[in-house]
Amino acid sequence: MNNFMVMWETDRKHPKYEQLYRFIVGEIRNGHFKENEKLPSKRVLGEYLTVSGNTIETAYDMLVQEGYIYSKPRSGFFVSKIDALAPTIRLKNAIEDRANKPSYRYNFKTNSVDTKTFPFSTWAKISRDMLYKDLLDSGEGQGDLCLRESIAKYIREFRGTLCTAEQVVVGAGMEYLIGIVSSLLEKDSAFALENPGYYKTYNLLKNLRRKMVLISVDKQGMQLDELRKTDATIAYLTPSHQFPTGVVMPVGRRIEFLKWAEEAENRYIIEDDYDSEFRFGSRPIPSIQGLTESDKVIYISTFSRMLAPSIRIAYMVLPLGLLGEYKEKFRYEASTISRFEQHTLNEFMDVGYFCRHINRSRKLYKKKKDALVDAIHQYFEKGTVEIIGADYGLHLLLRLDTELSEEAIIQRAKKNSIKIHGISQYYLSGTVLPHKACLVLGYAGMSLEEIDRGIALLSRVIASAN
Amino acid sequence: MNNFMVMWETDRKHPKYEQLYRFIVGEIRNGHFKENEKLPSKRVLGEYLTVSGNTIETAYDMLVQEGYIYSKPRSGFFVSKIDALAPTIRLKNAIEDRANKPSYRYNFKTNSVDTKTFPFSTWAKISRDMLYKDLLDSGEGQGDLCLRESIAKYIREFRGTLCTAEQVVVGAGMEYLIGIVSSLLEKDSAFALENPGYYKTYNLLKNLRRKMVLISVDKQGMQLDELRKTDATIAYLTPSHQFPTGVVMPVGRRIEFLKWAEEAENRYIIEDDYDSEFRFGSRPIPSIQGLTESDKVIYISTFSRMLAPSIRIAYMVLPLGLLGEYKEKFRYEASTISRFEQHTLNEFMDVGYFCRHINRSRKLYKKKKDALVDAIHQYFEKGTVEIIGADYGLHLLLRLDTELSEEAIIQRAKKNSIKIHGISQYYLSGTVLPHKACLVLGYAGMSLEEIDRGIALLSRVIASAN
Repeated sequence: MNNFMVMWETDRKHPKYEQLYRFIVGEIRNGHFKENEKLPSKRVLGEYLTVSGNTIETAYDMLVQEGYIYSKPRSGFFVSKIDALAPTIRLKNAIEDRANKPSYRYNFKTNSVDTKTFPFSTWAKISRDMLYKDLLDSGEGQGDLCLRESIAKYIREFRGTLCTAEQVVVGAGMEYLIGIVSSLLEKDSAFALENPGYYKTYNLLKNLRRKMVLISVDKQGMQLDELRKTDATIAYLTPSHQFPTGVVMPVGRRIEFLKWAEEAENRYIIEDDYDSEFRFGSRPIPSIQGLTESDKVIYISTFSRMLAPSIRIAYMVLPLGLLGEYKEKFRYEASTISRFEQHTLNEFMDVGYFCRHINRSRKLYKKKKDALVDAIHQYFEKGTVEIIGADYGLHLLLRLDTELSEEAIIQRAKKNSIKIHGISQYYLSGTVLPHKACLVLGYAGMSLEEIDRGIALLSRVIASAN
Repeated sequence: MNNFMVMWETDRKHPKYEQLYRFIVGEIRNGHFKENEKLPSKRVLGEYLTVSGNTIETAYDMLVQEGYIYSKPRSGFFVSKIDALAPTIRLKNAIEDRANKPSYRYNFKTNSVDTKTFPFSTWAKISRDMLYKDLLDSGEGQGDLCLRESIAKYIREFRGTLCTAEQVVVGAGMEYLIGIVSSLLEKDSAFALENPGYYKTYNLLKNLRRKMVLISVDKQGMQLDELRKTDATIAYLTPSHQFPTGVVMPVGRRIEFLKWAEEAENRYIIEDDYDSEFRFGSRPIPSIQGLTESDKVIYISTFSRMLAPSIRIAYMVLPLGLLGEYKEKFRYEASTISRFEQHTLNEFMDVGYFCRHINRSRKLYKKKKDALVDAIHQYFEKGTVEIIGADYGLHLLLRLDTELSEEAIIQRAKKNSIKIHGISQYYLSGTVLPHKACLVLGYAGMSLEEIDRGIALLSRVIASAN
């Protein structure tokens, strides 16, 4: 029994039965208690350790349940056969790879937004109200009906889509929704992506292990004749504002794409409408989805850009032809968005705050866009620059008439703490045709002053090099 | 010009340029304005319609941008070639298939929880505080570090896992996380699922287009020797409480599985710890993940069962060996959970509310479990029933000594507004060996009274049939 030297905790942090349990497990695993060795009876051990029978009882119970020991009727408890793995692998304390990202004084990245426009107190107020609604039980996997109705209403009105709430699927981010789409479409069908295009979509589809073909973009968007030369059956388009070129696809080309899709059962168009709300001067172009009553378009968009990046609510409109399969395949999956947030957004849209917010943001971003355009005209020599696609979306292209390569400009800018991208960086395939240096400038996240100073500095940096 | 009969809105709901734009689009699409037909000059049309030049300007602009019309230098505007698709497909107003689900008086389903235990005011209070933190910008794709640290701390302490926050990935539901795991594991590697098992996992992996093999469950859990006969490389286990049999996998078998995984590079164990918190009598069994320092276990669990089904926060612990690939593949993906909710949960855990809540719920569920067991003993004739796996998880098995088939019992119960499942329903493959009728009874969502009355009625229903 002197092998039962249990060191009771003085601070009593854990119940005695647990301490005893841990002790015996330790002894078994370090081999002090051998296979098939008999353990003292509960009574004897209880007396020896001067603890209640219950304590021993519970500990032995746990040991039996977990298989460390076994009991033989009328003969007691014995150590089971446990050939433990040698704990070789040391648990390395992996380090956060916050790959010391450089921070820039002037950051013209394209994916940021101005969270200052967010109607914070309103959102907070509604959220608070929602917290007192009974929304703890699981809602609908597709998203709660009320929110889907608000969304359907909104995109019918503002995006000209033809859809009912029934076709709307709400999910935590476009990545998640495209994952759903991927499992609704044929396993081996290839996606056609715009080139240059959005690397996140490319990366996402790669993770989903989808076949992809890259189709060049001309002044009207993805080139259909090039698409026709491939076996791709899903065209992934950003027609209202191609990323990054800013091209708007004209109605003629849109209709040709719809025709292409109509030609075969398994052909579909994914219409990524990521920033159609931000169009300056005239109202947004109606979506392809609503152009005809064709059932060939999967319309997808997100609220993260319109509200705040940390609010993860995206949505898509499924063609009626895919709805049945969706309902069948995803009938068990719960929504990925907390119902509190779903109902907060629903209220926010219902009461009209959302539209007001969009209009406010649009005005603010227009100011910033104008400031950027003005700054370019002010600081760059006339005739040496061309601005492309400034009228919609939250970035524009700046084509430069200079001997410097895009890369050279980006590097010089970086040295001066200016973050800019070159269009070459958005070519998803390696081959980039030689072209004039063309910068992609996002401005949504910058202040008017930063925009002005940033462009002033950029122009000097480039000039000094010529 | 008399073909320019624009009907201006009297209520002025839309700006005139937009009404004009809509009018012209309509005329072009219904063919009244023919291909290459010349439109009146802006000036002329402005005078004819007595609207400002700006109005015409904007409308024509939009029409040009969208490709409905084109302009020839020094000769004016012309209608483009638009061979619109005939709008054939009528938009069917798809109907919600709320396949009139029957509602039961006594519902013994296994997946419900008692939301009454949820510490609502505390959660609401913390949420309100979080709303005033600056959490609008996008956080970490993996989940914000503070929450990952709280989770790592919690499972190290209560589940005996060996992990750092760095290995923790937070996501909106286990389905989403398993989607990530699927793209980290070899494309063609097969998953081994427990049979009987959890149909949702089966369905999810089917949607992810993964190969699956079904392995029978014995009194210690999944049968390893049967697994060894297959080419499956990923073992999906619910060791702390196999669903639905309630079997707890003993340490010996756990270690054998770890050994099996160690034998090949590409072998992994997915440890689904879905309801380990609800263990009555003794504390939960430590996880396989922490049993040895083997780097072969993907530990996964969810908060939805512990907090509320509508709160969609799940997490997993990745092996260090998969961490690099995860960071590489998912570097662009944003978290699927709003940061407000992430930080609310973090605070909730940090301040100790979470553990208190778990203890409270455990006590409540124990009461319900006891009530269920008592009711069974009270209403069923001694010796005619056997209760299995009542000590953990939120359901138990009731094996009946009766001539009635499981199906017959379920149907009779249904007629009496009692919802119960039979174990046969959880066999993922068709072949179910003949066995005594065995019911799967969940009780978490029922009141003590409902449990008592439900069992009383069930016993009568069965007795009356014998």
